Amino acid sequence: MAQTDEDDPLSWARDYTPILAAYQAEYGETTPLDGYTIAFASHLETKSGVAIETLHEAGADVLFAPSEPQSTHGPVVDALDAREGITAFAWEGMTDDEFDNAQHELLEEEPDFILDDGCELIAKVHAEHPDVAANVIGGGEQTTAGITRLEAMEAEDVLQFPVYGVNDTPMKHFFDNVHGTGESSLTNIAITSNSIIAGKDIVVCGYGYCGRGIANKARELGGKTIVTEVDPRKALQAHMNGHRVMDMDEAAEAGDLFISATGNRDVIRAEHFERMDDGVILANSGHFDVELDLDGLEELAEKTTTPKEGVTRYHMPDGRRLNLLAEGRLVNLTGPYSQGHPAEVMDTTFAMMFVAAYDMLVDDPELEPGLYNIPDRLDREVASMKLETLGLSTEKMIESQRAYGEEWEHPDSSF
Amino acid sequence: MAQTDEDDPLSWARDYTPILAAYQAEYGETTPLDGYTIAFASHLETKSGVAIETLHEAGADVLFAPSEPQSTHGPVVDALDAREGITAFAWEGMTDDEFDNAQHELLEEEPDFILDDGCELIAKVHAEHPDVAANVIGGGEQTTAGITRLEAMEAEDVLQFPVYGVNDTPMKHFFDNVHGTGESSLTNIAITSNSIIAGKDIVVCGYGYCGRGIANKARELGGKTIVTEVDPRKALQAHMNGHRVMDMDEAAEAGDLFISATGNRDVIRAEHFERMDDGVILANSGHFDVELDLDGLEELAEKTTTPKEGVTRYHMPDGRRLNLLAEGRLVNLTGPYSQGHPAEVMDTTFAMMFVAAYDMLVDDPELEPGLYNIPDRLDREVASMKLETLGLSTEKMIESQRAYGEEWEHPDSSF
Amino acid sequence: MAQTDEDDPLSWARDYTPILAAYQAEYGETTPLDGYTIAFASHLETKSGVAIETLHEAGADVLFAPSEPQSTHGPVVDALDAREGITAFAWEGMTDDEFDNAQHELLEEEPDFILDDGCELIAKVHAEHPDVAANVIGGGEQTTAGITRLEAMEAEDVLQFPVYGVNDTPMKHFFDNVHGTGESSLTNIAITSNSIIAGKDIVVCGYGYCGRGIANKARELGGKTIVTEVDPRKALQAHMNGHRVMDMDEAAEAGDLFISATGNRDVIRAEHFERMDDGVILANSGHFDVELDLDGLEELAEKTTTPKEGVTRYHMPDGRRLNLLAEGRLVNLTGPYSQGHPAEVMDTTFAMMFVAAYDMLVDDPELEPGLYNIPDRLDREVASMKLETLGLSTEKMIESQRAYGEEWEHPDSSF
Amino acid sequence: MAQTDEDDPLSWARDYTPILAAYQAEYGETTPLDGYTIAFASHLETKSGVAIETLHEAGADVLFAPSEPQSTHGPVVDALDAREGITAFAWEGMTDDEFDNAQHELLEEEPDFILDDGCELIAKVHAEHPDVAANVIGGGEQTTAGITRLEAMEAEDVLQFPVYGVNDTPMKHFFDNVHGTGESSLTNIAITSNSIIAGKDIVVCGYGYCGRGIANKARELGGKTIVTEVDPRKALQAHMNGHRVMDMDEAAEAGDLFISATGNRDVIRAEHFERMDDGVILANSGHFDVELDLDGLEELAEKTTTPKEGVTRYHMPDGRRLNLLAEGRLVNLTGPYSQGHPAEVMDTTFAMMFVAAYDMLVDDPELEPGLYNIPDRLDREVASMKLETLGLSTEKMIESQRAYGEEWEHPDSSF
Repeated sequence: MAQTDEDDPLSWARDYTPILAAYQAEYGETTPLDGYTIAFASHLETKSGVAIETLHEAGADVLFAPSEPQSTHGPVVDALDAREGITAFAWEGMTDDEFDNAQHELLEEEPDFILDDGCELIAKVHAEHPDVAANVIGGGEQTTAGITRLEAMEAEDVLQFPVYGVNDTPMKHFFDNVHGTGESSLTNIAITSNSIIAGKDIVVCGYGYCGRGIANKARELGGKTIVTEVDPRKALQAHMNGHRVMDMDEAAEAGDLFISATGNRDVIRAEHFERMDDGVILANSGHFDVELDLDGLEELAEKTTTPKEGVTRYHMPDGRRLNLLAEGRLVNLTGPYSQGHPAEVMDTTFAMMFVAAYDMLVDDPELEPGLYNIPDRLDREVASMKLETLGLSTEKMIESQRAYGEEWEHPDSSF
Repeated sequence: MAQTDEDDPLSWARDYTPILAAYQAEYGETTPLDGYTIAFASHLETKSGVAIETLHEAGADVLFAPSEPQSTHGPVVDALDAREGITAFAWEGMTDDEFDNAQHELLEEEPDFILDDGCELIAKVHAEHPDVAANVIGGGEQTTAGITRLEAMEAEDVLQFPVYGVNDTPMKHFFDNVHGTGESSLTNIAITSNSIIAGKDIVVCGYGYCGRGIANKARELGGKTIVTEVDPRKALQAHMNGHRVMDMDEAAEAGDLFISATGNRDVIRAEHFERMDDGVILANSGHFDVELDLDGLEELAEKTTTPKEGVTRYHMPDGRRLNLLAEGRLVNLTGPYSQGHPAEVMDTTFAMMFVAAYDMLVDDPELEPGLYNIPDRLDREVASMKLETLGLSTEKMIESQRAYGEEWEHPDSSF
Repeated sequence: MAQTDEDDPLSWARDYTPILAAYQAEYGETTPLDGYTIAFASHLETKSGVAIETLHEAGADVLFAPSEPQSTHGPVVDALDAREGITAFAWEGMTDDEFDNAQHELLEEEPDFILDDGCELIAKVHAEHPDVAANVIGGGEQTTAGITRLEAMEAEDVLQFPVYGVNDTPMKHFFDNVHGTGESSLTNIAITSNSIIAGKDIVVCGYGYCGRGIANKARELGGKTIVTEVDPRKALQAHMNGHRVMDMDEAAEAGDLFISATGNRDVIRAEHFERMDDGVILANSGHFDVELDLDGLEELAEKTTTPKEGVTRYHMPDGRRLNLLAEGRLVNLTGPYSQGHPAEVMDTTFAMMFVAAYDMLVDDPELEPGLYNIPDRLDREVASMKLETLGLSTEKMIESQRAYGEEWEHPDSSF
Repeated sequence: MAQTDEDDPLSWARDYTPILAAYQAEYGETTPLDGYTIAFASHLETKSGVAIETLHEAGADVLFAPSEPQSTHGPVVDALDAREGITAFAWEGMTDDEFDNAQHELLEEEPDFILDDGCELIAKVHAEHPDVAANVIGGGEQTTAGITRLEAMEAEDVLQFPVYGVNDTPMKHFFDNVHGTGESSLTNIAITSNSIIAGKDIVVCGYGYCGRGIANKARELGGKTIVTEVDPRKALQAHMNGHRVMDMDEAAEAGDLFISATGNRDVIRAEHFERMDDGVILANSGHFDVELDLDGLEELAEKTTTPKEGVTRYHMPDGRRLNLLAEGRLVNLTGPYSQGHPAEVMDTTFAMMFVAAYDMLVDDPELEPGLYNIPDRLDREVASMKLETLGLSTEKMIESQRAYGEEWEHPDSSF
């Protein structure tokens, strides 16, 4: 059983991750993952710590590494690494090179399964550790950005093992992306900038699940939101949800605060920085720190200063000052006050990651290499567990309803 | 070209359906549907009228019938029926039997293509006109309820021709279901009952696209919303969106206003009516009038009266009075003040129906019998046209972004 | 006791006006208003009907007239007029002249008290019936527009009797203006135009209680709202609530739908009509039909047509068409589908009017002529009754809290 | 002129307080406050720092002390104290006794004017420094809690000088209380607890300006809000805004998160703590740390632990754990990640404080001792300056409109 004393850095998170707690209680007895070694990459903090210990409680040996070099909380890493059967390839304050090396070292330990965040471990094992990849049973990936990479791998037909795209399941994107990224992005921007959301012209780049969460919540708080999108259908959705829709040239002139959430690169570029007002705030809630073209911004600026912790101020030759939060890294995860995503949403996401591993390793659906959606039954299982922990009831179908859904002639409908 | 004088009953709707107007302008010249006979079932009013004339302008002969007997606007039917190449199987005030017969008569005219709403024509042609079905080239269906029936037909392997499930495309359900049904349900309930949304305990049964639109908008207007759902994932979504989640037994006791939007039957039953407070309001925004068990309600009541147009009051033996709007038929389409869905959302839906017909008849993808999703390219085409008519711009992808989405190794990412 | 059979046109409204029902039950026994004649002006429909019968049940003779010639519901007038002790100076379809004459005739009956809506009766009795005015004991006024007129009368020192400004009490403006006018304006605009709120650029002129209700609710429904205001503080409030703030010249170019709610005149003028797009919708939710400069609009237009019931289309020489709803009269009260304000909010407003009359006539605070705020105790009394009818509980102050509010040294505060 | 280099701790705040910047620019030239000594109490951080330097730029000597011992930011105090003409009676990490003493020391310097926050300086000068009080020209107070104390002083007729109740002006309570306290409370609760707002049952105690801001914004973010109130009118407002209204006994059982914002004491007491669920979160956004009965909580608990920075966990004998944020002090100002209120709202509040001092000292309205509302013209002046800095335009009244507001007979209205 997991420790529960108050000095345990996971104590608080454990209370707000009730599904993981239930899995620990259930599988801590039966240890169904005995004999498997699972690699786990994630932002390393209290909630991912609970996820790691849940895999471990269920019997697995766990190797873990960060998915991003700046978001690691040292005490969590140390507490986990101290347990037998858990090995850390991580420490607080890693450089980019150390981060890179640590992932390679982890892979050399030949994990049976890879639970990834951004597809960095899965990409590396295929690109540089083909012998290891050949023996991996399967994997899971939790981010939109990672799924995009996996789709590119699928298109090139290079995947050596089956991977569950956990991000593409309702239990992930409707909770983690919309609510988790949505709330934590705005919270961290507000605290880091000590500025208000209400009344601001706020440009959200991208109206996927994350962008939608950010834009909708910013609007609810009184922001005057503007959305830029490349997909006309998402652009129309934004329009109908009350966001102004513009291209980036126009939005650059209108915004007070810019938040990128596309999962792509070069979303805000020199040509846009040139059009912005003095004093604007720039933040990234997408994935890697390439969403904003920071090289382009650097080139435009005369100098940079740090007027407040977590803020880099770019001084333009014409006197305008552009304020970048969290060095252009994920503002909700790497900002100076960041606590990561809210625990309750990570409970759902990590529960999906857990059942993805459990399903492939224990129930073994015998999948060919490739990218797969999480089966609906796993998604429903996690949803039902969450509702149970919340004390909420679904309505139960009665026989006439089940029959109604299966017939098509409706002989007794009176219209 | 369509008439534009002010006495034309379609004049107003035509102004708020700019995509259909654009199709009329484009295909009115080339008449690509020449030689085809298209059956069209829908709630028959001004917007569906514009859809019918758009098919006709594009060259088709059109046979139309109502999808629901009570929602027909006579002047629209008459104006269309007067045109050569358009034949009405409809009039205002049809009985259920006349409605049923008219659909059969329409099918005996042997249409080449069927655009349906609720799957009644498609079900009938399979069940009772097998010779006609054998020659139908294809179909399209615009409602969730209709898709459910088509899935049942698919499961029984009885479909004789390919059908595009227009409802299952983002351009349909994010606009028509969420915004169209959402706004028009609340508007019609408020007007018909002369009652306020703000402050009410409002039970929405079902959290699909329609239920979500209704519940979210009711909440925005100050309603204290409660959602009942059979799917645990949708129940959780409702929970995270700030709705209280209950089973129907509990909700029956808590609600002031009940709105059913499930597409199923017997959602609110005798056991629930028994628990309700005096003065509650009952409405159906789902599909057929079977969502509320009206037979059960009738049996419980001592008598019914009509305290206000559009309201049937059921007097219970214990003195409680339950107020049913629009006889339990679709409150947004058949209520006494109903104008149907807002024109702008029907523009999108009917444009999807138009391109579904155009694609199968003109571009001919040579599909086997079965239920198909609308191809993404058609969905995007309609979205792009809508944005154009609104004067809104999408952001254009640049080369580095397109490349980024296709590569998976990200050699130059600095995380 | 009031009639309760189902053929009574007030039956439905009575169920949704529980405070008035409670007053009828209480004062129907004691008839404290015996011997007084009360003049009552209002939009005459089911809820004002219940207000009239409540005064009558409490013992008063009631003389009633419309406050606006177009909003009268005939069956309500007839049912009330049939009762002894109630006299109607109203019928459905009055002309402006008939409306004017009826008010004079009413005043000639020498009422003891005047409950007014827009201050027309009070203004007329002062301007043209000075002998009657001399014997009036007091009055009450329920609208912002009426209060403005009363303030002008107060400034000129012409008021002959005390008047309670019912509009200026929280129980009136936070409910009737914000929620009643807010919801009913949007509902009637949506139904009359068969158009959608979501996605529209909506200009609300004025950010008083009514404008705030309309603008905030329009924004919640997905409207992209713009507010024009003359008061810089209200303009800032609108800004912080997420509305774009502009002057009317700029707003005229940006809007799809314009709603005036200022209580003033000439808010939208020729210079603004000139800048508007083809197809815009114009509505008035303020007070009199002078908010939009209709003479100016008429002069600009080549012709007008009626594309839909309740819509007047002004055809500009350059081809643009501007669509005016409800002839520029109050769209929520005089539109073709209007049921007036929701019953629940009128319950509160008419209860305030009732206690205003009761207080001056029965409790007699011996006020000098002038305009007075409703005393807080009356406001609280109505609020408490409403909460009771809703089954809601307030928190009760405990002794330490009452003491805390009265001391200023806080010797035991530990900060 | 104020320093502008990047090492200045006020640099960031100064950019987001444009009204204060404008006053510095204007009055830095003319120094109208020359010769006056102004006492200033506030939470001492970057924005109040800019307020202090603005008074100083305008010519005043400034003496400043904290209004709360825990919210002081050391670098701000040091930077200001280093300037001639500014004296600090404050340092980071003061004890309650040191805080108390420092205020007395400040008062012994005999200020001419007192700008207060919570009325502690004004109460102390009256209670313990009567000779100083006799020579004070006037004061200003910015909080609801302070106004309550001033009203008690007024009722006892002990006030020795006139005080402007800055809190009671729209420019203060609609911005600082609603938006500033609203956003920053939720932001700090979310970060400190690493928990989500969406989906939680959130009890807000008090529906004044602060409570309204918190409750409405929590609801917008997906919280299922519950409001407790002692005033029936505010309770009804909460009801109509979609909050569930309960008494505290009932709310204690329903809530996941409790936020007190009443300005009173003992709002949540032992009898309520006894009813709460395991794991609830408790926070204070009111004023002093007496809103929650912490003595009562302490007595009920077996022990307390600190599971996370900023969280005190009270362990009940029955196993339930209640989590108190920020030791029950103001969660938005004293939490471990707190940056204080957003700069933009403090700009408005401190501008009101500045004009309050300027008006009494420079324009000298010759007020008797007592509590006064800020004159409307000062409120409008600040509003207009803010709009100007935002680049927003009000609509200007035209002559016919001004006349309309002044006449009451409306001879040309056509209704």
